[in-house]
Amino acid sequence: MGQAIRIGIAGHGNLGRGVEAAIARNPDMELVGIYTRRPPEQVQPVTAGAAVFGMDALAQHADRIDVLILCGGSKEDLPQQGPELAALFNTVDSFDTHARIPEYFAAVDAPARANGKTALISAGWDPGMFSINRVIGEALLPEGATYTFWGKGLSQGHSDAIRRVPGVAGGVQYTLPVEEAVERVRSGERPELTTREKHRRDCYVVLKEGADAEAVREAIVTMPHYFDEYDTTVNFISAEELRRDHAAMPHGGFVIRSGNTSVENAQVIEYGLKLGSNPEFTSSVLVAYARAVHRMHQQGDVGAKTVFDVAPGLLSPKSAEQLRAEQL
Amino acid sequence: MGQAIRIGIAGHGNLGRGVEAAIARNPDMELVGIYTRRPPEQVQPVTAGAAVFGMDALAQHADRIDVLILCGGSKEDLPQQGPELAALFNTVDSFDTHARIPEYFAAVDAPARANGKTALISAGWDPGMFSINRVIGEALLPEGATYTFWGKGLSQGHSDAIRRVPGVAGGVQYTLPVEEAVERVRSGERPELTTREKHRRDCYVVLKEGADAEAVREAIVTMPHYFDEYDTTVNFISAEELRRDHAAMPHGGFVIRSGNTSVENAQVIEYGLKLGSNPEFTSSVLVAYARAVHRMHQQGDVGAKTVFDVAPGLLSPKSAEQLRAEQL
Repeated sequence: MGQAIRIGIAGHGNLGRGVEAAIARNPDMELVGIYTRRPPEQVQPVTAGAAVFGMDALAQHADRIDVLILCGGSKEDLPQQGPELAALFNTVDSFDTHARIPEYFAAVDAPARANGKTALISAGWDPGMFSINRVIGEALLPEGATYTFWGKGLSQGHSDAIRRVPGVAGGVQYTLPVEEAVERVRSGERPELTTREKHRRDCYVVLKEGADAEAVREAIVTMPHYFDEYDTTVNFISAEELRRDHAAMPHGGFVIRSGNTSVENAQVIEYGLKLGSNPEFTSSVLVAYARAVHRMHQQGDVGAKTVFDVAPGLLSPKSAEQLRAEQL
Repeated sequence: MGQAIRIGIAGHGNLGRGVEAAIARNPDMELVGIYTRRPPEQVQPVTAGAAVFGMDALAQHADRIDVLILCGGSKEDLPQQGPELAALFNTVDSFDTHARIPEYFAAVDAPARANGKTALISAGWDPGMFSINRVIGEALLPEGATYTFWGKGLSQGHSDAIRRVPGVAGGVQYTLPVEEAVERVRSGERPELTTREKHRRDCYVVLKEGADAEAVREAIVTMPHYFDEYDTTVNFISAEELRRDHAAMPHGGFVIRSGNTSVENAQVIEYGLKLGSNPEFTSSVLVAYARAVHRMHQQGDVGAKTVFDVAPGLLSPKSAEQLRAEQL
C-alpha cells in the first residue's frame, strides 16, 4: 500500500469528529493532528491518543501533512480559512453556500495555483454526491428533467430559525419530501412541482413557561422564506422529549433524472441517501476526497477543484488494476 | 460551443440504433456515418439522411471522425474490433464480459498507446454506472457491504437459453429482484444472501405444436447455471401474446451500499435505474463517454480507459464554470 496519507483536521465540531471516525476506517490514512481555535486542552478527540494543536501550529506542520481537511462552517470560517490554508496545504472542504461557490472557487484557486497546491472545495453530499448525480443524469439523458428531494432530515438552519421565535425554549425542524411527488417522479412522469408540492416541514418545539402555543405556531408557519411556502406542522413537546427523541442528525434525499432516449422509451435514474448521521456522512466524503486530492497533487494537478474534476477511481484505496478486475 | 464532436458508429444493431437516437439529442455532436459489415444499402438508419458505409471504409475516414463508438457484441465482435480500431480511432465500447475485462483492457491499451489514441472500454450501466457506484459506495463507507440487484429486466442470455430447449418455439426471460431482500438491504440490515434469495426468474414460453408443457417446464427450471439456482416460473403463452406483450427491452436494478460511519450511525446509499429500453440507455452512456474521450484525447490522455478514469464533468456538454455555477 505504500506510505499512509497523512491527514490534518482543521476544526473540531461535528464534522471534525466525523473525519476522525472516518480516518479510523481507512487503513491507508493516518491522523497527524487536530488543529483548533479553542485551547487545545479543552478538545476531546474521538481517537485515543490523537494530538491536538492550536490553529497557529499549522504553518510549522506543513511538511508533516499531505492533506488538510477543513471542518469549519461555510458562513464564518471557510471564506477566510479556505484561501489562506490553500496557500500552504492541499485541502478539502465542504463549502456549501451554493450561490457563492464560483466566488469561493476563485478565492481558493489563486493561492493554490500560486503555491502548487491542490484544493478541493464543496465536497459532501449536497453539494457533492448529489451534484455529481445531477451532472451525470443530465449528460446521460439530455432530454428530461432533474428533481432533488431532501429528507427526511434535520435542518440546522430551520431549527435555528425556530429557536429564535419568542416563547420558544428549544426545538428542531425536519424537512420531508412529499411522498406523492416522489412517487410521481419515480413513475417517469415529469411534473412541474411548486415548493409546497415537493417538501413539507415538521417542527418539534419546547415552549418557554407561560408562552402562548398558538402564537408560537402562527409565528413559525408564517415565517417568510423559512416556512411560509411550505405545509408546516408544529408539535409541542417537553424538554425531556426533545433531548431523548431528537438528538440524532439524520438526513438524506434523492436526485432523480427522468428522461427519454427516444419517443417510445423513458428512463429513470435515481440516487438516494438514507443517512443516520448527516455530519458523519459528509466527513466520510471529505476523507475519500482527501485521498483523491493527494493523488491529484502527486500527478501535478494543482489549483482549486470540485467533485466534477475527480475521476471515481481516485476515491478508492484500490489500484486501477484491482478496480478493473474486481468492481467493473 | 465550438466545433461539433464528429462521431462514427461501428455496427448497427440495437446499440448502434440507440447511439443514433442519442446523437440526435446531443447538439454538440454530429454523426459522420454508420459503418456496417452488411451491405450498406440493407441498413436503415434511424436518422434521416445518415450516411452508411461498409466497415472497410473506416480506415479512409480516420481524419473525419473524432470518436468511433463500437456497437458490436462482447463475444464475437469486440475482442477483435476493439484492439484493431483503437489503433486508428479514439473509441468507446460496451465490452461487458466482466471476467475478461483485464485481458481486453490490455489488448486495447497497447495499440491505443502506440498510436496516441484514447480508448474507453466497458461503458454502459453494468459494467458502467453500476461499477462507478460500487467503487464510490465502498470508498465513502469502507465498513459495510455492497449489493447489486438486477431487474425487472429482460435477459438476452437467458431468453436465448430458453429458446434452445426442445419443444420451445419462442420465449423471453425476465430477471426480478426479490422484493423482500431489497427491502432488508434498504433498511440498513446487511444480510448474507444466496443467489436464490436475491433474484427470481420469470419465463414466458411459446410451445411448438405437440410439445409437452410439463417436460419443457422441467427442462427450463432445472437447467444448470441458468435456472437451477433460482426460483423460476414458466408461463405458457401464444405466439401472438409474445409479439404483443414482450417486444420491449426493459431492464434496471439497484446498487446499494450499506455501511457504518461510527458504532452508532448507519448510512445507506442507493443507485437505481428503471430503464424502458436497456440498449437505448446503454447507447446514451456510450455517447456521453464519447464526449469525455474526445476531451481526454485533446488533453493528451491516451491509452485504454474505463469509467473509473473519467471525471464526471467531462461527460457534460457544459463548461466547468457553468457546472460549478449551476449544478454544484
